[in-house]
Amino acid sequence: MPRPFVFINSAMSVDGKISSLERRQVRISGSQDKARVDGLRASCDAIMIGVGTVLSDDPSLRIKSDRLRLERSDLGRPENPLRVVADSLARTPPAAKILGQDCLVAVSNSASQDRLERLSSRCEIIKCGEGRVDLAELMSELYERGVKRLMVEGGAILNWSLIQSGLVDELYVYMGGLLIGGKDAPTLVDGSGFRKAFLRLKLISFEPLDEGVLLKWRIAEIRP
Amino acid sequence: MPRPFVFINSAMSVDGKISSLERRQVRISGSQDKARVDGLRASCDAIMIGVGTVLSDDPSLRIKSDRLRLERSDLGRPENPLRVVADSLARTPPAAKILGQDCLVAVSNSASQDRLERLSSRCEIIKCGEGRVDLAELMSELYERGVKRLMVEGGAILNWSLIQSGLVDELYVYMGGLLIGGKDAPTLVDGSGFRKAFLRLKLISFEPLDEGVLLKWRIAEIRP
Repeated sequence: MPRPFVFINSAMSVDGKISSLERRQVRISGSQDKARVDGLRASCDAIMIGVGTVLSDDPSLRIKSDRLRLERSDLGRPENPLRVVADSLARTPPAAKILGQDCLVAVSNSASQDRLERLSSRCEIIKCGEGRVDLAELMSELYERGVKRLMVEGGAILNWSLIQSGLVDELYVYMGGLLIGGKDAPTLVDGSGFRKAFLRLKLISFEPLDEGVLLKWRIAEIRP
Repeated sequence: MPRPFVFINSAMSVDGKISSLERRQVRISGSQDKARVDGLRASCDAIMIGVGTVLSDDPSLRIKSDRLRLERSDLGRPENPLRVVADSLARTPPAAKILGQDCLVAVSNSASQDRLERLSSRCEIIKCGEGRVDLAELMSELYERGVKRLMVEGGAILNWSLIQSGLVDELYVYMGGLLIGGKDAPTLVDGSGFRKAFLRLKLISFEPLDEGVLLKWRIAEIRP
């Protein structure tokens, strides 16, 4: 089934962490990286995050630059890309900043009716999958709706689920000059992890940015 | 107290893992990186690893290149750098490949007499610290013995203990083009991790190598 071009964009520490143990947001990026991320958002039809990121960071996921929003409008596109939450059990709080017009929450059939009702006035809801959101089905549905280019902004579990399902094309990592440490701090890709065969990536580009390095990788193949 | 110049060298995946969940060794490096590591070893007076790495990988930690060993001999240095294991409870198996001439196992006062006796014919033993090896004291002792340049080759817990104790000057990370994933896979720096103030690093250099990138960082300061 056709699906959008999907890339993950994330900032991480030198030791691969995306936040501290307490899921506190850590300032990894500098101003150049923030501007780059805003530009990436503006280049997309949709942006997806997992419910864990909604709960810990409550991001709005809108484009910050007036100029970039205006450019989109001038091209007849919505000011902001569609915002998508992967949220199997509909745990997104009704006051979450991501909600509102052009927001879609994807839930599974296990989400409680109560929660769905509370959310329904604040976003569109799509049901796909039984205990968990069927991400392949969701991608296919998004494609049908015109999403050709989709940016994933984490967190660690959604990154894993998408990668494991073969639904990611590229991975852009801004590695900031700091160390977070910690056996239990969230990393770029958590979940259960690969065991014997690992996912090979091909380096597309690397460049210094702010106090760190921006690395772009293309997903290649799984092999031992 | 004076101590050696200390750097950590490690290979990791794009998501910051140094091995898989089962502590299986994963081939992250290619041949260029292996040659680089051999050269780094040859440039040092001592190489240190933690007992966890002895137990999972059983490395010999000798220099592989005949030429590099010969060059050291020609300069009147030992063929191989001193090998040091940080091993609070003397868990290093007496058959471990790292043992032999020019190997020093640092233990704490909590190591059992039994284990020390079994090890004592295979290496020199230094006692420092109560429940755990006092790494600052160990570094100072190594300096007294002429170790001016020391390379740390992991694992995740020793890296954390040294960094947390302010005993590391530089960090060399070869990031190989693969993804390992996993919430419980060992990362470059595990332990308890920083909570509020994080360790800032300054990028020294970056270059492509094999199927990945070599990044060198200098430890700067701890700040929020």
